[in-house]
Amino acid sequence: MSEYFPPIKDMQFVLQAIAPLDELTSLPGFDEVTHDLAAAILEEAGNFAGGVLSPLNRVGDREGCAWSPDGVRTATGWRDAYRHYTEGGWNALACHPDYGGQGLPRVVSALVEEMWNGANIAFALCPMLTHGAIEALELRGSEAQKRMYLPKLVSGVWTGTMNLTEPQAGSDLSAVRARALPQADGSYRLHGQKIFITYGEHDLTDNIVHLVLARTPGAPEGVKGISLFVVPKFLVGDDGSLGARNDVRCVSIEHKLGIHGSPTAVLAFGDNEGAIGWLVGEENRGLETMFIMMNAARYSVGLEGVGLCERSTQRAVAYARQRTQGSELGGPARDKVAIVRHPDVRRMLMLMKSRTEALRAVAAVVALSMDLAHHHPSQDLRREHQAFVDLMIPVVKGWSTESAVELASLGVQVHGGIGYVEETGAAQHLRDARITPIYEGTTGIQAADLVGRKIARDRGAAARALMLRMQRVMDALARSGDPQLHAIAAALSDGVAALGSAVEFVVSTHDADIRRTAVGAVPLLELFGVVAGGWQMARAALAAHRGLAAAEGDRGFLRAKLLTARFYADHVLSRSRGLSHAVMRGAEAALAMDDDQF
Amino acid sequence: MSEYFPPIKDMQFVLQAIAPLDELTSLPGFDEVTHDLAAAILEEAGNFAGGVLSPLNRVGDREGCAWSPDGVRTATGWRDAYRHYTEGGWNALACHPDYGGQGLPRVVSALVEEMWNGANIAFALCPMLTHGAIEALELRGSEAQKRMYLPKLVSGVWTGTMNLTEPQAGSDLSAVRARALPQADGSYRLHGQKIFITYGEHDLTDNIVHLVLARTPGAPEGVKGISLFVVPKFLVGDDGSLGARNDVRCVSIEHKLGIHGSPTAVLAFGDNEGAIGWLVGEENRGLETMFIMMNAARYSVGLEGVGLCERSTQRAVAYARQRTQGSELGGPARDKVAIVRHPDVRRMLMLMKSRTEALRAVAAVVALSMDLAHHHPSQDLRREHQAFVDLMIPVVKGWSTESAVELASLGVQVHGGIGYVEETGAAQHLRDARITPIYEGTTGIQAADLVGRKIARDRGAAARALMLRMQRVMDALARSGDPQLHAIAAALSDGVAALGSAVEFVVSTHDADIRRTAVGAVPLLELFGVVAGGWQMARAALAAHRGLAAAEGDRGFLRAKLLTARFYADHVLSRSRGLSHAVMRGAEAALAMDDDQF
Repeated sequence: MSEYFPPIKDMQFVLQAIAPLDELTSLPGFDEVTHDLAAAILEEAGNFAGGVLSPLNRVGDREGCAWSPDGVRTATGWRDAYRHYTEGGWNALACHPDYGGQGLPRVVSALVEEMWNGANIAFALCPMLTHGAIEALELRGSEAQKRMYLPKLVSGVWTGTMNLTEPQAGSDLSAVRARALPQADGSYRLHGQKIFITYGEHDLTDNIVHLVLARTPGAPEGVKGISLFVVPKFLVGDDGSLGARNDVRCVSIEHKLGIHGSPTAVLAFGDNEGAIGWLVGEENRGLETMFIMMNAARYSVGLEGVGLCERSTQRAVAYARQRTQGSELGGPARDKVAIVRHPDVRRMLMLMKSRTEALRAVAAVVALSMDLAHHHPSQDLRREHQAFVDLMIPVVKGWSTESAVELASLGVQVHGGIGYVEETGAAQHLRDARITPIYEGTTGIQAADLVGRKIARDRGAAARALMLRMQRVMDALARSGDPQLHAIAAALSDGVAALGSAVEFVVSTHDADIRRTAVGAVPLLELFGVVAGGWQMARAALAAHRGLAAAEGDRGFLRAKLLTARFYADHVLSRSRGLSHAVMRGAEAALAMDDDQF
Repeated sequence: MSEYFPPIKDMQFVLQAIAPLDELTSLPGFDEVTHDLAAAILEEAGNFAGGVLSPLNRVGDREGCAWSPDGVRTATGWRDAYRHYTEGGWNALACHPDYGGQGLPRVVSALVEEMWNGANIAFALCPMLTHGAIEALELRGSEAQKRMYLPKLVSGVWTGTMNLTEPQAGSDLSAVRARALPQADGSYRLHGQKIFITYGEHDLTDNIVHLVLARTPGAPEGVKGISLFVVPKFLVGDDGSLGARNDVRCVSIEHKLGIHGSPTAVLAFGDNEGAIGWLVGEENRGLETMFIMMNAARYSVGLEGVGLCERSTQRAVAYARQRTQGSELGGPARDKVAIVRHPDVRRMLMLMKSRTEALRAVAAVVALSMDLAHHHPSQDLRREHQAFVDLMIPVVKGWSTESAVELASLGVQVHGGIGYVEETGAAQHLRDARITPIYEGTTGIQAADLVGRKIARDRGAAARALMLRMQRVMDALARSGDPQLHAIAAALSDGVAALGSAVEFVVSTHDADIRRTAVGAVPLLELFGVVAGGWQMARAALAAHRGLAAAEGDRGFLRAKLLTARFYADHVLSRSRGLSHAVMRGAEAALAMDDDQF
């Protein structure tokens, strides 16, 4: 039984060398955020992730959730774990101090969040959705709404949900049909069915706060006629006490490929008298709020990808060290060796390790920019960091999750036949990972966002600014005089050139021929992810090189970091030109096909 | 409920233009094999696959197999289906006429086999293993053994198994420990445990013929001391009647990620008095026989990959045509359209379609060469075709199955959220596909075979001969004067150049530094698969171009074939240089890592 071990050494490296915490400590509100504090938090979170959440991962997968007309029962031990989670203050880590949060920087809470995901993604989904609801209410809720819901959501005593999808309205939310009828007292009555509602019903807490998209009477058609409502499972008195059961029921839960521990609900609003809800923000501007909040959620799903990559890698490495099979290739001895000695197994493990570390570093750099975009005194710098964050969120979401599927699949492969047996646990990661490139916007939706809103809209400005930053890293590598770093620089240079061509293609083509750039959108997102990862691995290599030269830090770790960056350059960055070709040349045939000839 | 529709149009195209049946009709034994006969067989097989096997695919997945001390029960309807399968003569299609087979060319039976796999891979595994046993007995069985077992195995009245794996002996068969003790009457008594035995126990037939690897007393250690035995579940009298139950029991079956319909057994041989078996072929030469027979089985697993690719693609296309979501990108209308209209969905479908057709074409060309290697009167030509077959088998096995995993995963993605719900069926294909790059030799094992035995051993001769054939296709494309074909030629030329460099690297490096070439073995196998597919898609494009110019054939189909080849060139062949780089430059870091730093 392989448990989750928090990758604290790499996380510390990230906070030192990749997304330095030091950049935050002089900012207002973060004066107490020291490396020691961060280290203590990572340590404690790691204990909880490895000791409590990880052992429940298999339990949740095996038992799943049980639906009855009275509600949904989560798996054995999950209620207790959730209680410990809230009592430990973990839910409030990154929340605003005004409502009981601890106001930690995102770059720290992101690493903690990665741990929850690595240990037990089905569990971690619950607080992830709660934080989405918190964000929506913080953004647009009335003072009364904030007072009523936020403290309970921040502590985690109640959980939150996002109710967007309907059978006919998936990626296309303009098709939402749920109705909200205004009442004399200022409240609304909601009617309609919502599907794929993560933790839409469960037994972890006494109340659930649903955030629901619906249309008011006479609202415009399409996306401009959708409003956001807060609809609690139990109505809440002014004193915070729970009142009557609201008219929202869980009709069924889905039988899914993975994340069995997390209930995915079909919710019926208003089958009887109507579900009582209250408008959040302005009428008809619900989708705007959802989109702001969805950016945060998309980033969080990116962290699910990172956590799953880490977990799959850990399991594969542990197995490869322990499984004996065959003798050393090219060696004189016939003794059987652990399969970690076999070159092809090493290749798979390095692919897993290097991509995981690259994804973690990219996510951390984005999180640091989130902190700087919110807290830096300079408006110019805030704007710059926000532009970088906006550019990167679809990449972090799309590429971390696609990578999680690939790496979990590789993790099965490392195990051989036993990986296909469910009890081994490797297959669960693949099943769990498979949802992440789909929910909170498919990879196709992320890629459309990247191409349309993040690259074409500013004529490539944010992307070019990013490539300049990459160029500075290449220059530093070139100055190093180290052959390992030169090889990395050459690969990164190829990658940035490929990315640059693809970006210019998008800028020059998008407005005139949007279908053409749309075919290449996902290859461009992948290219972006590959090169961004190469950029961060190059920075990591530089830092490792400096540390080794100065004889500072853990020599074995730094040497491995250098080799991992080199491997990434040769096996991952080397894909850049092919991807760039697909972006720029790959549209014609797909668009010219007759629909009935696929 | 989406059923399997045999891709007969593409299969006919393959038999006309890619692996022409005409090349066989003048050969002895194949004089009756006409296009009409092949068409009739494909038609009938398609009916059986779509009408009988496909509807049982979900049943098998949902119900799985039930173990009890008395044996294993397959899912509802499977016994009947198997009976219909044997009564229809399907099991005997490609078998030797001496034992009741129909002796059809492999290129035809391969297409039929692809259908079984596309319709229901868990079912198709049973005859696949039976054919492995047939091959072993044909190759090395005594006349008495052939008489006793082959007619029943060919008709399918009994099934066969391959018993190789033991807990400590997976990829490394030298570690086999099962023992076979000689008896006075010439028989042996076998003792030991075998795991992962596909259809090792079931209720489809009255008897099961196990082919078992074991060691005789005093046999040399390692691979040179392993013998092959035939061990029937029920002993067989000289008149063919079933006698006593042999001492082999199914101890348990595995709880697997997929192929639930197919029982994967742990078999205990000789827990009591010893399982009675007979030596097949010479003592200590069992592995040789297994390897010859495994080549056939590996090719068959490649066909599983092709079948699964086709099935995933069909389901995704059907869903994309039917699911309405969003309006036409770049179009004036706000009407909702089927998602097949969205550029990114088209990209995914084209990726699935083009790779599937490429894999089918490559597999068919290899099958045609199998026929020519066995039946052509010229010894030189036979040898040439056999060299091509030997070279390509690890590629067909490795790359078709890796592609099946990728494409099944893409198929889930095309569905969005509903793809993650098990009832949809897309997720089953991913679960089923995931075993195919593992069993009958993992992709790593295939790649080691490709690099060591198939490229380094003949100093690249067979690979270079293949690239010469590719060059001739490029020349023909270049002569065409058609810009579409020129673009394909350019991409293929890039691909062949990349493959050529990688092959020369292997030839020049392998003997001196085997660990170095071993790190790049899987990337080389992928590169080989990508370029071989590009070669065949280029030939398909040429044929389509000729057909369109001559106004012959189905215009829509031929136009789609041309576009599909073009798409493959831009989205798949474009990966070649990156892969070649990984082969040639990617070893250092993986080999230099300390084992404890992964």
